[in-house]
Amino acid sequence: MPPTRRAQVSRVRAEGSSFVCALEDDELAVEEPLELRIEGESLLVTMRTPGHDEELAAGLLYTEGLIDGADDLVAIAHIDDPRDPRGNTLDTRLAGGVRRGATNLLSSQRAMFASSACGICGGATVDRVLSRVGPLVAPRRASPDLLLSLAARMREAQATFAKTGGLHAAALFDLDGGLEVLREDIGRHNAVDKALGWRLLRDEVPVDDRVLLVSGRAGFELVQKALVARVPVMAAIGAPSSLAVELARAGGMQLVGFLRDGRFNDYSAPSP
Amino acid sequence: MPPTRRAQVSRVRAEGSSFVCALEDDELAVEEPLELRIEGESLLVTMRTPGHDEELAAGLLYTEGLIDGADDLVAIAHIDDPRDPRGNTLDTRLAGGVRRGATNLLSSQRAMFASSACGICGGATVDRVLSRVGPLVAPRRASPDLLLSLAARMREAQATFAKTGGLHAAALFDLDGGLEVLREDIGRHNAVDKALGWRLLRDEVPVDDRVLLVSGRAGFELVQKALVARVPVMAAIGAPSSLAVELARAGGMQLVGFLRDGRFNDYSAPSP
Repeated sequence: MPPTRRAQVSRVRAEGSSFVCALEDDELAVEEPLELRIEGESLLVTMRTPGHDEELAAGLLYTEGLIDGADDLVAIAHIDDPRDPRGNTLDTRLAGGVRRGATNLLSSQRAMFASSACGICGGATVDRVLSRVGPLVAPRRASPDLLLSLAARMREAQATFAKTGGLHAAALFDLDGGLEVLREDIGRHNAVDKALGWRLLRDEVPVDDRVLLVSGRAGFELVQKALVARVPVMAAIGAPSSLAVELARAGGMQLVGFLRDGRFNDYSAPSP
Repeated sequence: MPPTRRAQVSRVRAEGSSFVCALEDDELAVEEPLELRIEGESLLVTMRTPGHDEELAAGLLYTEGLIDGADDLVAIAHIDDPRDPRGNTLDTRLAGGVRRGATNLLSSQRAMFASSACGICGGATVDRVLSRVGPLVAPRRASPDLLLSLAARMREAQATFAKTGGLHAAALFDLDGGLEVLREDIGRHNAVDKALGWRLLRDEVPVDDRVLLVSGRAGFELVQKALVARVPVMAAIGAPSSLAVELARAGGMQLVGFLRDGRFNDYSAPSP
């Protein structure tokens, strides 16, 4: 299924004190549900833009801590069922012993919060992530030159966005600025999971030698995903949140925001 | 807790072939976890910008179909627990008999998908929503004049966005363009839930005489929330998704996108 779909739309614009209205075709970003199963048991349903579904699933299982690498993912495929003609269901088989109990991400997240020593707060949330994956051992820093070159390169590579304005993008660049992979999705988390899942399916995790660039804002959960994958540098075209900055600093990640128009803000921990 | 927090940031910009770098204070949008409980039992944890938590919870319970009005919500309050000094836990009591079994939103969503006649697809997703709430009985249409006036009014009223660039906004306007309520949050769903929850807590649902304006894109889930609340007109500054358009058309809602710079696209069903 292509990532965009045509629909008739009425375009309206003000012209002086009246309005001009034209019926035209428009390209919409496609949004469809995807059900992810583990050996036939439903794990979750997420809205996503179809395409690269295996990467999305692999990335999600990886960044949410259910698998640690390609070896843990024995099989992944769309189910063969006439009731699912659009390919909206993926079934997976994990290696024996791989966190088989954790088949409800939401429940497991709740359980983690409930067992936190200081109840529920941003600090505990950061601690919880770091107790699971630890801070980066050898932090890296991207140069201003490199960072400023990335936004334009991602934009050039974004096929669908220009058409619809409705898709988020996530891209991995090497430390010389070369584009490795770019993925788009209606959901910003999905775009990140697709890019990181692409690496996992190539058995190339951790992703400790790449810059992750995201087209929108950087919230806590995106930084968490990047940190789980050991990404040393994350850059966002939009703003980061307070908790995203807190996690990046505690985890030794370089976090950059507002990367556009020849400038950016670096939110990394001040040098000691 | 204020919705922004100061952090030291290194601002970098290109100047000719070199870079200018300045250490400055920056305002970050605050992101903290909120745990929502029903009579002490954890329902979910969501990341949100603190403030108007009761509205967020009330709106979420309403738009996700757990309660139908203010009468179903007997009590809602932050817990009094020294382990939760930041006020990140809300407990609620629902009226007897109110969907008490549905204490796991994710599970209930999965169950709904699993019981769908045609498996999992966008069409089934739209049908599922409409079988629960039905299409709007008396659709309304907002005039181009009215719509074009809203974006500027929301921007004026957005206190935090200008500072951080990191918050989504959702606002309800009456059909004369008067601003009724505006709420901001790091999560677009939360901003919508806060605005609709404000109405619910005033015992003023359904919201069938208001325009809902959102600062970002309009995905399926936002349109679903608005339709549950019976909002007749929804406008987005950004792009809608394919499934958002499908649901709005099937539900008889006027859906407008790209509302900016004196123009917009109307994605409503073509008139018969």
